Amino acid sequence: MIEDLIRPILTVDVIPLVLKDGCMHVALQRRDKAPYANEMALVGGYVRADEDESATAAALRVLREKAGITPRLLEQLMTFSGAGRDPRGWSASIAYYALQPAESLPTDRNLMLTPLDQARGLPFDHDAILAKAADRWRRRAAYSTLPAFLLPPHFTLSALRAAYESVLGRALNDSAFRRKIDELRVIQPIAGASSKATARPAQLYRLSHDGVTEFDRTL
Amino acid sequence: MIEDLIRPILTVDVIPLVLKDGCMHVALQRRDKAPYANEMALVGGYVRADEDESATAAALRVLREKAGITPRLLEQLMTFSGAGRDPRGWSASIAYYALQPAESLPTDRNLMLTPLDQARGLPFDHDAILAKAADRWRRRAAYSTLPAFLLPPHFTLSALRAAYESVLGRALNDSAFRRKIDELRVIQPIAGASSKATARPAQLYRLSHDGVTEFDRTL
Repeated sequence: MIEDLIRPILTVDVIPLVLKDGCMHVALQRRDKAPYANEMALVGGYVRADEDESATAAALRVLREKAGITPRLLEQLMTFSGAGRDPRGWSASIAYYALQPAESLPTDRNLMLTPLDQARGLPFDHDAILAKAADRWRRRAAYSTLPAFLLPPHFTLSALRAAYESVLGRALNDSAFRRKIDELRVIQPIAGASSKATARPAQLYRLSHDGVTEFDRTL
Repeated sequence: MIEDLIRPILTVDVIPLVLKDGCMHVALQRRDKAPYANEMALVGGYVRADEDESATAAALRVLREKAGITPRLLEQLMTFSGAGRDPRGWSASIAYYALQPAESLPTDRNLMLTPLDQARGLPFDHDAILAKAADRWRRRAAYSTLPAFLLPPHFTLSALRAAYESVLGRALNDSAFRRKIDELRVIQPIAGASSKATARPAQLYRLSHDGVTEFDRTL
């Protein structure tokens, strides 16, 4: 029964997301092989049953090997499938988004930062995958600690506020933001650590939990 | 390159959800084949590249052929994968949940209704799939029209209120519910149609849109 089946191709496609100039960007990569050689696309590759423990492990491997990225957070988006999406045959691709600080991206891997809402005309069904990612981001980011994963592990409150401002598309009052984030108990100050990036040293914080925390209301 | 790969097995697993006695239930099915023959499990099957247009089409086919169900709504949950989840080998299963009225389930397909939060000890990783489905349901149902898909296409306001009450786990004030659902503009009365199921005829409604509508706040 199993051997009679034409087994579909199974791949992963990763959407590396970063915050740059107050705007969400996707890091596209120039493809080095057919199909669509030399075109900019998501970071994708085959799931290798002999090597990968799971599709998530495959996504982390592909991201590391092809783009030199170790993300702060990797989350499954959804799976895209069918006969028409890949010229190599019937395929299913498990899509993930990866969050990391923009400054952590390598500069020698043919990555190109493109505003998330302007990335169009990509090969395969990558336009549809990106549209879904942008939609999910809009729905979830303001109601969770997701934006914090666009910052380094230790961050200032101002940097966190700026990340939420980019999600919400509006300025946030500094003291109101401090009070709300304090009530949510999702970040904690790092004793004795302050940022030297600004004229006046600013307290550094970290997330209280490793994973994403969801809120009942927006910040 | 492609031919060198051991291609993983690709399957779909469907979680048929119904509302019964004011409580969410999953319709489990007795497996007729190995592995795990005769055990109760989710409704699953292979994706057939020669037959299915997409994984969603595969899920609808498997649900129809194996369980005799045509759902009111089918939504992708997420994909579960790895070497250990299926004794037949490295596999990825795209999980879906299917919503329909309890009275539309066939009675001759070895289906067994089990409260969603009590279904345990299932084969494969079906316990983990169900836990994820229950979590997603809790997060999304109260903020969307999802509960309406547990009702027939034409429903009374009382039936819709009861569906939301089961989601929220508390009674809703009838007139407040009417006002809120009216403001959201997600349902519309069917001219001249009323239910004869109750002593006094009740107006019948339908959803304004075919798909799921999401709300900014809970009902």
